[in-house]
Amino acid sequence: MGAVTAADRRPKQDRSRATRQRLLQAAVACLAEHGWAGSTVSVVAERAGVSRGAAQHHFPTREDLFTAAVEYVAEERSTALRALFPQSGQGPAGDRRAVVTALVDLYTGPLFRAALHLWVAACNEDQLRPRVTELEARVGRENHRIAVELLGADESRPGVRESVQGFLDMARGLGLANLLTDDTARRERVVAQWAALLDEALR
Amino acid sequence: MGAVTAADRRPKQDRSRATRQRLLQAAVACLAEHGWAGSTVSVVAERAGVSRGAAQHHFPTREDLFTAAVEYVAEERSTALRALFPQSGQGPAGDRRAVVTALVDLYTGPLFRAALHLWVAACNEDQLRPRVTELEARVGRENHRIAVELLGADESRPGVRESVQGFLDMARGLGLANLLTDDTARRERVVAQWAALLDEALR
Repeated sequence: MGAVTAADRRPKQDRSRATRQRLLQAAVACLAEHGWAGSTVSVVAERAGVSRGAAQHHFPTREDLFTAAVEYVAEERSTALRALFPQSGQGPAGDRRAVVTALVDLYTGPLFRAALHLWVAACNEDQLRPRVTELEARVGRENHRIAVELLGADESRPGVRESVQGFLDMARGLGLANLLTDDTARRERVVAQWAALLDEALR
Repeated sequence: MGAVTAADRRPKQDRSRATRQRLLQAAVACLAEHGWAGSTVSVVAERAGVSRGAAQHHFPTREDLFTAAVEYVAEERSTALRALFPQSGQGPAGDRRAVVTALVDLYTGPLFRAALHLWVAACNEDQLRPRVTELEARVGRENHRIAVELLGADESRPGVRESVQGFLDMARGLGLANLLTDDTARRERVVAQWAALLDEALR
């Protein structure tokens, strides 16, 4: 048999990558909808239309699958957010209110819900805890970096770093308030007010 | 047999109340430590040193026990908080920073951890969801009322209500950030900065 060429390998790699992405997206959706107790590799494989064996080839353990899934979707969201505000932080902060709203949106969708289920499960599962702790730190740092960038915040000024951090903590709290009920109307008023306060603080 | 007098009944009522309180406190501690999956009426009864039958006499269902427990401990904390700042909201807001710190503390201890486990479990348990939704609204309103009172916030002024709400959302987000790691050092810096922003907003 002849050597396998790059052209032969490409489609197989593409298929493998596509399968992996389908699994990751299905895992986040599953976690958001059914919580940790209802989220197993089998359930996700079925949802993604992938065999259980193929799923386990990509993700040997349940912890592998769900931590990778939250990280993957968080990265996707970050990329989308940066693409939404390509000019931010460079000119005057005219669209700071829009940036604040978009950042809060990071915490009120299925991704936050999935991450929350994972965090809470990690409190009581020894195998999950160190991985989720590390993941949370990584995603937290990345979200902070994006916020600083898009808000055009000058962290060399005293208090600015803490203002941005507190704002992201508020966004996380707003995500929690949206867990059992639709908190949109109240959230919009809170975000409008704090966008103005944050704008003052960053000036 | 003669009629039971009030004096005869008193000790029995006292014992019953003491048993109830022990169960409620044990339930919150259990939920905070072991999460919803590890928290049953039997586990709590054992922790409280009460028979399973007695526990079920007080709380017929698991949902009864844990929602009552979170509500009871939340009320205890509110009362303690009000007692800590008897003069607040009356004079100049000199101790606003201390009030802000005490309010944030509401969200970083075992009570918040227990409530969080209950909220997240309620996402996927139909019997729990309506009760926890109602409980969350009640506790949320009470915490808002205390915050307004202790901060001496004048809600008739535009934006003040939303400033206080956003601050409580931040406190909730800080509670979440403290779930898997000890976030105390970062939290203190964030709270110091946001206490100053809030003070400006309430002036």
